[in-house]
Amino acid sequence: MDELGRRARGAARQLAMSEEDRRNAALHAAAAELRSRREEIIGANEIDMRAARERGLSAAMLDRLMLDESRVEGMASGLEAIAGLPDPLGRVMAEWERPNGLQIQRVAVPLGVIGIIYESRPNVTADAAGLCVKSGNAVILRGGSESFHSSRAIHACLVSGLEKAGLPADSVQMVPTTDRAAVGYLLSSMSQWVDVVVPRGGKNLIRRVQEEARVPVIGHLEGICHVYLHAAADADMAARIAVNAKMRRTGICGAAETLLVDRAGAARLLPGVLTALSEAGCEIRGDGDVVAIFPEAREATQEDWSTEYLDAIISVRVVDDIDAAIRHIGDYGSGHTECIVTDDDDAAAKFFRNVDSAILLQNASTQFADGGEFGMGAEIGIATGRIHARGPVGAEQLTSYKYVVHGSGQTRP
Amino acid sequence: MDELGRRARGAARQLAMSEEDRRNAALHAAAAELRSRREEIIGANEIDMRAARERGLSAAMLDRLMLDESRVEGMASGLEAIAGLPDPLGRVMAEWERPNGLQIQRVAVPLGVIGIIYESRPNVTADAAGLCVKSGNAVILRGGSESFHSSRAIHACLVSGLEKAGLPADSVQMVPTTDRAAVGYLLSSMSQWVDVVVPRGGKNLIRRVQEEARVPVIGHLEGICHVYLHAAADADMAARIAVNAKMRRTGICGAAETLLVDRAGAARLLPGVLTALSEAGCEIRGDGDVVAIFPEAREATQEDWSTEYLDAIISVRVVDDIDAAIRHIGDYGSGHTECIVTDDDDAAAKFFRNVDSAILLQNASTQFADGGEFGMGAEIGIATGRIHARGPVGAEQLTSYKYVVHGSGQTRP
Repeated sequence: MDELGRRARGAARQLAMSEEDRRNAALHAAAAELRSRREEIIGANEIDMRAARERGLSAAMLDRLMLDESRVEGMASGLEAIAGLPDPLGRVMAEWERPNGLQIQRVAVPLGVIGIIYESRPNVTADAAGLCVKSGNAVILRGGSESFHSSRAIHACLVSGLEKAGLPADSVQMVPTTDRAAVGYLLSSMSQWVDVVVPRGGKNLIRRVQEEARVPVIGHLEGICHVYLHAAADADMAARIAVNAKMRRTGICGAAETLLVDRAGAARLLPGVLTALSEAGCEIRGDGDVVAIFPEAREATQEDWSTEYLDAIISVRVVDDIDAAIRHIGDYGSGHTECIVTDDDDAAAKFFRNVDSAILLQNASTQFADGGEFGMGAEIGIATGRIHARGPVGAEQLTSYKYVVHGSGQTRP
Repeated sequence: MDELGRRARGAARQLAMSEEDRRNAALHAAAAELRSRREEIIGANEIDMRAARERGLSAAMLDRLMLDESRVEGMASGLEAIAGLPDPLGRVMAEWERPNGLQIQRVAVPLGVIGIIYESRPNVTADAAGLCVKSGNAVILRGGSESFHSSRAIHACLVSGLEKAGLPADSVQMVPTTDRAAVGYLLSSMSQWVDVVVPRGGKNLIRRVQEEARVPVIGHLEGICHVYLHAAADADMAARIAVNAKMRRTGICGAAETLLVDRAGAARLLPGVLTALSEAGCEIRGDGDVVAIFPEAREATQEDWSTEYLDAIISVRVVDDIDAAIRHIGDYGSGHTECIVTDDDDAAAKFFRNVDSAILLQNASTQFADGGEFGMGAEIGIATGRIHARGPVGAEQLTSYKYVVHGSGQTRP
């Protein structure tokens, strides 16, 4: 593992000095490799799928693991999309001149070496490596054991792309074992070689990473996202947004888990919104006020307010006013993404000011919490920590900076 | 300690929503308190000084601990200078519109709760707390036991300032004990309450913090700063910069520790530069090439290249060319601050591109590595990590951000 780290550090030095064209060429070449080795990749995936079926993995897990032609094509075109993004390196983020004539610039540089720890989705191999190469970072990939053969086949394409572009093959390395101890070592004993770890996966994985890591971690534990229907919400829009935020895909971190509604608007808004959710196949768990208005709802327990269902279930609560909604989100939210539905822009401004989450939306679905939807091309994950990056983490967020100062002989008095 | 944390979190929520005027008023009121309680503060400092003398602290330590009228005035005017800085909160750092009409803004918010662990300099109490209040962060201060009474007297002024401005007194709290176990608890068991820890002090303190912290740490372990005299350096400027970078103050992290000189310029540059350093009272430790040119120099050992002297000693090495200089800095530097002296801007550009340190200067002293000198008003420290902040950490660097998104009913397809 230390040898892996040492090689990553060496590759990172070279990547940091590489031209934009070369990094983009590596991504294009890797995309071409993915396409031409399609059969080989799907064959490797079949080995993983067979083992996963034998181990009795759930249908959802099998779906995440599965690769077919369109998913391989998706990875290839994803790499090309990343290649098309502006260069995140060398950007002059700020510049100013001091009274003594010193000219100071803050210039974007790569983070260095990034460790990615993920579960069964093999496409993370291509997406994460693509963003790292784009941003001049070396990466050490550690995928789930279920996807080992698939990830190895994808990894080979990335290495081939790097070599064709004349960049070090060690820029993208894969931990060559499925031994769980390797993850522990990566998290706890490689701070010399690894600058930041990005975990991608379920709560157990993230918690383990947060507990064991001796290097900075960028990511999020869970997404308990709220849709708050303000008294001045449009009823049709409220229903459309609630259904989309909850039901478009229930298993993603930006899916809504709790619906809050102002007491003053509850009788007007809830019947339509909850009927629409119910018709879309969602189970409703409400507090007493909600059950009184919508008797089909099951009674919610205290636990519901802090549960990330990742399923077709929503908890619903009537709140006295916007202050109570903000308090509820502060008490039970996870700092990920919250939406206010309202035609009252002052209420939205108050919500934006006083809710402390990474992403706040007025009149738009929480499922927009995504780097692609934000126009960042792709994301390596969504961060809810307060240090370094918050919200979608794209190529730009995988950079640090340095100050470069031009003088003419200044000494400090 | 957990109660301290809980109160800090509560205060942080209120500070985050506070108006700029109120935060600045608190800083001005605290400055006035420092001035009016000058005698009391100096009296408290006398208790610390007496105990320190009895414990036989070094003259340098005693000097750091000592407060007199001008130092109290320095703290007061420092707080006023911080109040005069632009508000780091609410800044729209970026904004764009998506094809679907979503309007996305990235807006600066406070980090939350900051823990400051420092040694004997009592003025850190005022400086650090001032920057935290300015940037809307609550702070938990843990100063060295030597400065306990001084820090407590200064802390009382800050609390009084907060109260006069109507901000929560818990915005600035001091760990009320000199028990070392409290530091361990703060570092390892308060991640729920503390968002980031900033250590200020010697290498032993920083190393302990880095090893024990379960929260992100912003700071630097050491400053092994280099001055590199390129073949195209002006000889007079080289001498002026080398003397200032090394000797202006030898005990600060931005002081130069190693001088590198191109082989092609060594005979022309070294005699003048080393004579100037020597006349300023600096001990010279050189490699064989240096001793051949400047026989007064003592022979350097391998250890010298990675030593932060913080004293009137400099190690000097002849390198073959700019690539060798860049390699030397990569091998022995600490990523803090490096200077190239050259009239060749292409060489400077290469140095800037390929040296990976927080601050790089052309033709200016490394002692400019300072938030005040950078025009940031003040600094809480200098960071050499790659995550979040690098270089001087001022009020702006003590912020995170959130995304606020205005929509008109958009749902995600």
